[in-house]
Amino acid sequence: MNRTDRTQLRRLPKRGFHDSATINQILDAGFLAHVGFQVDGQPFVIPTLYGRDGEKLYLHGSAASRMLGELSQGVPACVTVTLVDGLVLARSAFHHSMNYRSVVVFGTARKLEYETQKRSALRVVSEHLIRGRWDDVREPNSKELKATSVLEFQIEEATAKVRQGPPLDDEEDYSLSMWAGIVPLKLTAGNPAADSRLAPGTALPSYLADFSDKH
Amino acid sequence: MNRTDRTQLRRLPKRGFHDSATINQILDAGFLAHVGFQVDGQPFVIPTLYGRDGEKLYLHGSAASRMLGELSQGVPACVTVTLVDGLVLARSAFHHSMNYRSVVVFGTARKLEYETQKRSALRVVSEHLIRGRWDDVREPNSKELKATSVLEFQIEEATAKVRQGPPLDDEEDYSLSMWAGIVPLKLTAGNPAADSRLAPGTALPSYLADFSDKH
Repeated sequence: MNRTDRTQLRRLPKRGFHDSATINQILDAGFLAHVGFQVDGQPFVIPTLYGRDGEKLYLHGSAASRMLGELSQGVPACVTVTLVDGLVLARSAFHHSMNYRSVVVFGTARKLEYETQKRSALRVVSEHLIRGRWDDVREPNSKELKATSVLEFQIEEATAKVRQGPPLDDEEDYSLSMWAGIVPLKLTAGNPAADSRLAPGTALPSYLADFSDKH
Repeated sequence: MNRTDRTQLRRLPKRGFHDSATINQILDAGFLAHVGFQVDGQPFVIPTLYGRDGEKLYLHGSAASRMLGELSQGVPACVTVTLVDGLVLARSAFHHSMNYRSVVVFGTARKLEYETQKRSALRVVSEHLIRGRWDDVREPNSKELKATSVLEFQIEEATAKVRQGPPLDDEEDYSLSMWAGIVPLKLTAGNPAADSRLAPGTALPSYLADFSDKH
């Protein structure tokens, strides 16, 4: 991963990270990305699931998707993943903040053309989301693969930003009597709800019983 | 809010909504936006907090922020808010999906220059996030307001997408014996954690005791 002006953090450099370990940890903890690209002078930001394999991200969707169609032209794109960890409540309005981890990735995408490539990329996305699921379900057939666009997004540059910890107030404000602290936030998984048409006797698979909250 | 080609949903029109009620409900349920804009041919997608007042969104940050500096030039921008409601596990890999609510907003921003405007916009953002907080804390002084950029983002067009409900499999797959259903996901707030330097005797305010999970 390179580092140019577009990933140079201008403010609060203490919050910024350019190392792959930090970046990959955040990418692997998330599953929802916001993808940015521009068409005819108009920026678009579209939410989408993703998976990571090394320095590649995989995105997928309908073959009719505008986003995937535009991205597959190889236009410059930006993929951002944000994990929200908490609200930071300071004594002054000014020092309120959010605890979060985010990664901004720059790169370009190409469309995967071969069934085997598409299948293995879709597996990456699926396993990224719920490990163990892919081997349990009916795999996509040729018709379904044709109806699915799969993009390989090469990470050219990436930068992470992380804010953790308590509020940091001006020294003279610590004597003020309002409450300050953190409201933790976390994306949590509830109990799986079985489909009403489940085949009789179908048990919840262990990879779902163990499914820990991802965020 | 207008409706042009950029908000025309090309796929799954049943998932799309253009009415203000649906759009505002989603914008009001969220608090984190991903803002897209382009600089020198490179798209950027940056996470940020926001507040809504009518057909205006307010964004804020450091006066040194690249994002706010670029946006305040009045360039076309896109603000996207996504609420994740669950993973949709179908019997076939192909029909896996996500339950979510998202809004994509197109518009342009302008920088607020006057202290009174900035102060009231910051109040909108603060109240959007935690109702009742603003009146409890030390308000920003002139120096802090100077160090803060506040943008008013006019919603020119917006479109919502919503996917809810169970997996929808091909009819012949319903007899398959794998588990299918929904894993609900929700951004939940944990117990507020008081700052270690809290003034003695400071109680948790009622607006935080009542703080329901937002998502």
